[in-house]
Amino acid sequence: MKNKVEPKILPGMMELLPQDQIQFNKIMDTIKEVYESFGFFPLDTPVIEYSNVLLAKAGGETEKQIYRFTKGDNDLSLRFDLTVPLARYVAQRYNELIFPFKRYQIGKVYRGERPQKGRYREFYQCDIDVIGNETLSMVYDAEIPAVIYNVFKKLDFGKFTIRINNRKVLNGFFDSLKLNDNSTDILRIIDKIEKIGSDNVIKELEELNIDSEKITQIMNFIKIKGSNEEIITSLKEMNLQNELFSTGINELEQTINYIKDFNIPQEYYQIDLTIARGLDYYTGTVYETILDEHPSLGSICSGGKYENLTGYYTDQNLPGIGISIGLTRLYSKLKEANLIPNINNNLIECLVVPMDKQCLKYAIKVATTLRENKIVTDVYYQEKNMKQKMKFADRQNIPFVIIIGEEEMNNQILTIKNMRESTQQQLPLEKVISHIKGE
Amino acid sequence: MKNKVEPKILPGMMELLPQDQIQFNKIMDTIKEVYESFGFFPLDTPVIEYSNVLLAKAGGETEKQIYRFTKGDNDLSLRFDLTVPLARYVAQRYNELIFPFKRYQIGKVYRGERPQKGRYREFYQCDIDVIGNETLSMVYDAEIPAVIYNVFKKLDFGKFTIRINNRKVLNGFFDSLKLNDNSTDILRIIDKIEKIGSDNVIKELEELNIDSEKITQIMNFIKIKGSNEEIITSLKEMNLQNELFSTGINELEQTINYIKDFNIPQEYYQIDLTIARGLDYYTGTVYETILDEHPSLGSICSGGKYENLTGYYTDQNLPGIGISIGLTRLYSKLKEANLIPNINNNLIECLVVPMDKQCLKYAIKVATTLRENKIVTDVYYQEKNMKQKMKFADRQNIPFVIIIGEEEMNNQILTIKNMRESTQQQLPLEKVISHIKGE
Repeated sequence: MKNKVEPKILPGMMELLPQDQIQFNKIMDTIKEVYESFGFFPLDTPVIEYSNVLLAKAGGETEKQIYRFTKGDNDLSLRFDLTVPLARYVAQRYNELIFPFKRYQIGKVYRGERPQKGRYREFYQCDIDVIGNETLSMVYDAEIPAVIYNVFKKLDFGKFTIRINNRKVLNGFFDSLKLNDNSTDILRIIDKIEKIGSDNVIKELEELNIDSEKITQIMNFIKIKGSNEEIITSLKEMNLQNELFSTGINELEQTINYIKDFNIPQEYYQIDLTIARGLDYYTGTVYETILDEHPSLGSICSGGKYENLTGYYTDQNLPGIGISIGLTRLYSKLKEANLIPNINNNLIECLVVPMDKQCLKYAIKVATTLRENKIVTDVYYQEKNMKQKMKFADRQNIPFVIIIGEEEMNNQILTIKNMRESTQQQLPLEKVISHIKGE
Repeated sequence: MKNKVEPKILPGMMELLPQDQIQFNKIMDTIKEVYESFGFFPLDTPVIEYSNVLLAKAGGETEKQIYRFTKGDNDLSLRFDLTVPLARYVAQRYNELIFPFKRYQIGKVYRGERPQKGRYREFYQCDIDVIGNETLSMVYDAEIPAVIYNVFKKLDFGKFTIRINNRKVLNGFFDSLKLNDNSTDILRIIDKIEKIGSDNVIKELEELNIDSEKITQIMNFIKIKGSNEEIITSLKEMNLQNELFSTGINELEQTINYIKDFNIPQEYYQIDLTIARGLDYYTGTVYETILDEHPSLGSICSGGKYENLTGYYTDQNLPGIGISIGLTRLYSKLKEANLIPNINNNLIECLVVPMDKQCLKYAIKVATTLRENKIVTDVYYQEKNMKQKMKFADRQNIPFVIIIGEEEMNNQILTIKNMRESTQQQLPLEKVISHIKGE
């Protein structure tokens, strides 16, 4: 015997068993279907890019996590998100694209993190972005939540809330307090309020040497609550003489108004002034999405509006807006929380079981007819006993089993077992088809 | 102005424009749909694997082409095919899998080749394999061509032929000539007959120091032609007293017999004794697929049966059979040969165009209703003139455009343009839906 190599994979990689993979793919297909229904075009970029192109903007933590290597003369890296490749693509293909350019991309990205629960080194991101040429209509700020709503309504993981804010409101407010220099730090601290609580937010703000009076104003501001209309009214009543702030309120109001026309029930979206999104490139509307009954999962879909996508590559001014779903993490969390119904992990609709070798040819013919009628069908060809054949159907969670013996062949009739209901009947082939289809 | 980085990608990567990407994805979806209809389960393995696991078997050319790097303490590589990851997966998950295990995998693989026309460094493979536990029914040897037939029938790239052979017939024949030691070399040479011609095959065989008498026998053997039944008869009439040869003929005959039951028209499959498949791990039936009118594309779908998938990882005996479609190369060749109809590159079915800002809200409502009726709909929100809006529809190849002005809003009627036929009419919303759906 030769020496065997132990078959194993790197920690931090999600690799599923077939039935889980079916569930995962069904979720991915639903996301894809909704993205396409809004006219987002598919995009597929290489996993490997030139390091200088991919890291044009990166630095610090991101750069440390990158999978980077040389091959021949080339310094290469694996993509760590889908936004940088989009920027590169749009800059490179600018003259061939039609704007506004709506694209979705569902693909794997790579981060060489220390593996820990819920963190992955390889994971799927499902992104959409709209890129405008010079300008971008405010209606997209409402279309994006409409896409989020339709995705998670279809996925059916329970009630969710799309939280909406506008960075201009936040930045304008800090500007009026003359805290612009600290605004990035303040935004980062505010963003953590749900995780660390008000007291710790105050403590961290004090550490930035901010007056207690200003801290009180900040805390009052982020505690503004109520319906979307009430929050907008409260913001207006603050009467801050700051243009950025006013623009922000106006954008927030427009966003909320347009959202109504997309048929989204009011309980699914809510202005939340504490949301800033850590990333420093968002400049307008920002989003987070929370499963109401599982807030500990954090935001399951986030994003926002940015002023210029491609600044590192071209002089074009290309504003955009987008969101991302981190599907690998989401799936693993949902699975853990038992939120994915088991019913969906079935692929094969019907298994044809020939009783012995003499029935094989007829079994193939029956299966071929079922497939021609769009019924996903497998045949158990292996020579095993009946008990093992039925066990196969059972373990695969197959709803219908057709048994073919000599009697069935001679009488041109099929015995069909309903595995869920443990019933069985004899039917001619054409009736079997409509029976399986539930007609 | 900061220094800009030139946006570009590594040569040998396929990256498509949106409308080509739609075509590419439609082809991929068709392949996936047929694979699933036969009960193959989806599988998704990591792109990055441990080098010692991935390269357990490799050597020579393969190893040179690998993208290999270290990260932390780990020696890692990008997968170069989907077969080795399947072997690793089956060995690793043996106790959790249900056999026979039918899986498909569609994913990117990596080979650091010198970039040249038609060669890719990143490309999609679309694989199916059936893995048995100890045994594997001969019916799978016919099911695999049935899958190939259904894939390429649906894809509609023109008439194709699935060429079938059996390695036992070849190996048994060489055994009877006492040329077993040279059989791998001889098979490699025979495999090239279409590329290099008979004379060069003879020349290369002579270079192996084979008797001219034996060479004559080899050439006579591989020139056996006729219908599938005639070829089998000719093989039997050779009356070689060799067990392997007889087993091979028997397997070939069974394969051809079962194929008939899968409803594959006879002109789509043909025994071809020259096919060997270079890879040394095939041990039974082997396949190639040729587009009859474009033989220069070479085989567009190949594979075969192998005795043991997981020998490098476990002591289990797991025979298998499978095929692979190299989709990236196939797409680029088909595109070059103009074999992909342009009709299919359309995503958006309807564009809603508001005449001005006042019509935006109504446009959103109309689009939302269309989407609820499963019509892929985009809205032109940007403030441009009518000509630019129509140009957008035209460039995106959108078949229907709904124009919404004040008149339409007031009368609750829609103006719908059929862009293909250059006609236009006014219809209420519910009629528009059935009109677009072509009902």
